[in-house]
Amino acid sequence: MTILITGVAGFIGSNLARKFLGRGDTVLGVDNLARGRKENLRLVLENPKFHFLEVDICDYEPFLLQVRKVHETHSINEVWHMAANSDIPAGIQNAEIDLKDTFMTTFYTLQVMKALKIKTIAFASSSAVYGNLGNEKLVENIGPLFPISNYGAMKLASEAAISASVESDLEKAFIFRFPNVIGVPATHGVILDFINKLQRTPDNLDVLGDGTQQKAYLHVDELIEAMIIIRDKGCQPINYFNIGANDEGATVRSIAEEVVKQVSPKAKISFGVGNKGWVGDVPQFTYSIDKLLNLGWRPKLNSTEAVKKAVGQILEELSQ
Amino acid sequence: MTILITGVAGFIGSNLARKFLGRGDTVLGVDNLARGRKENLRLVLENPKFHFLEVDICDYEPFLLQVRKVHETHSINEVWHMAANSDIPAGIQNAEIDLKDTFMTTFYTLQVMKALKIKTIAFASSSAVYGNLGNEKLVENIGPLFPISNYGAMKLASEAAISASVESDLEKAFIFRFPNVIGVPATHGVILDFINKLQRTPDNLDVLGDGTQQKAYLHVDELIEAMIIIRDKGCQPINYFNIGANDEGATVRSIAEEVVKQVSPKAKISFGVGNKGWVGDVPQFTYSIDKLLNLGWRPKLNSTEAVKKAVGQILEELSQ
Repeated sequence: MTILITGVAGFIGSNLARKFLGRGDTVLGVDNLARGRKENLRLVLENPKFHFLEVDICDYEPFLLQVRKVHETHSINEVWHMAANSDIPAGIQNAEIDLKDTFMTTFYTLQVMKALKIKTIAFASSSAVYGNLGNEKLVENIGPLFPISNYGAMKLASEAAISASVESDLEKAFIFRFPNVIGVPATHGVILDFINKLQRTPDNLDVLGDGTQQKAYLHVDELIEAMIIIRDKGCQPINYFNIGANDEGATVRSIAEEVVKQVSPKAKISFGVGNKGWVGDVPQFTYSIDKLLNLGWRPKLNSTEAVKKAVGQILEELSQ
Repeated sequence: MTILITGVAGFIGSNLARKFLGRGDTVLGVDNLARGRKENLRLVLENPKFHFLEVDICDYEPFLLQVRKVHETHSINEVWHMAANSDIPAGIQNAEIDLKDTFMTTFYTLQVMKALKIKTIAFASSSAVYGNLGNEKLVENIGPLFPISNYGAMKLASEAAISASVESDLEKAFIFRFPNVIGVPATHGVILDFINKLQRTPDNLDVLGDGTQQKAYLHVDELIEAMIIIRDKGCQPINYFNIGANDEGATVRSIAEEVVKQVSPKAKISFGVGNKGWVGDVPQFTYSIDKLLNLGWRPKLNSTEAVKKAVGQILEELSQ
């Protein structure tokens, strides 16, 4: 198998590359290195089956040209499209960010697939497509879908562009609606934020909101495993699955406490007001992974265990 | 009230302009005249309360500049965003068409609203956002939403961008999911296609597909009425409604027969094979307008009556 991974130098992309190379696939990794970092690829860069292209997907002509060149010698079987903006608040301030990095990357990836007749896409979507549906259990076919961030909006737009492409050009799509994913290499997210804050001010950790926000967290190792199982077992034209932990989630308070415990046990935690961290943040939701459980997969770690493991790994990584 | 209408020279936009001017509003109409035609505005161009801007929404800076200029003297209260691609098959061949004309027009309209602090949008969405859900009754909160045309995908993307904007910038959004709308000025659609074909070959009418495709058709006069009622009564941040006829629809065969009857009664109708006219066409669906009925509105004409009225009006228009 030859697999094209977009956003290969990011958090999920770099883990995927390692996994695919480990099972013997050839990987063509694409990244513009805007948010992704080459250090994230240190474990794969020397692998002769790994090919790296530094190109911006939205520079369509060079992107197509370079992928076509590889495609001529290593026929690409699948595209795993992971490239996206990962800074949701930035995307709310400036809608152009998610337009370009979250949606147009999908649009041009689909254009390249059409041009080169690559028929299978696996796509990192997000729980953010659901918006704020209050206490309703988020099953995959719930509606209406009214995202509350530009990130969520452009992930939904990407799903829509993919589904239209399945009708006309593609054979199969795998849509993974990600939860909050944690682990290494840490590129963004609440744990890294807390660690960074504590390293600046070891006596105090300021938390946005009152700490009652509760979210499900999945460790990246488990996410990768789930994606591959869905890829292997999904037999519909469009296979769409929530991926997440099988529990109610961990609160921001418990994450803050875990980080403090491992980084600076004497620090005081100061909470803000309200249970929304920022505009576009969904305060609390119940994510159903029943569809995935029915496929025979279940996560080994709950949210709290995943947080504990990730905090340790991120600290280890930062100390290197 | 001052209302900005995008796509004002198109089928729906021109009817809206007439309606708003008729009730005494000031209308700022925007159109790039790519698909819209200035003749469609013949009944409003002389009205002193109508201001026309020929500008492409996707040329963002000139668009903003020109709207800002009007906004300074006539404070714009609402935007009715009707601009979109109307040629669905063309958009399936070339995804750039719906990207630009159906989605980016929405994106830049929202940017202008943010810049000028205009808080209310009314948006022409489409039943195409639902994709092909088989025999399921299309209620507004059904899922999953996997459109099968780029047009449907970019309408869904537009809805998503609007819902994210309601979270951060806007106060209110009205999302109208249109059915097939017919009437004058006829710019596109099955009736006009059939009339054009018959005028070229008066003895024969070739129909794509076997004629069993059945769709609900609403006359544009009723559509406008329904939109205005939703606008007046909707009190949610996001008010989303299917608009359609209150029946099972009319078949392509019955439309062909009506056109033949009025245009060239001796013509033979030749049907194709299959019940899908073209890739991306949803063959048959049951559109629920219960939510709209609960608001107290119901269409006076059924699909068949709307077709009959529209055929007559289009023929009259063509003979002028």
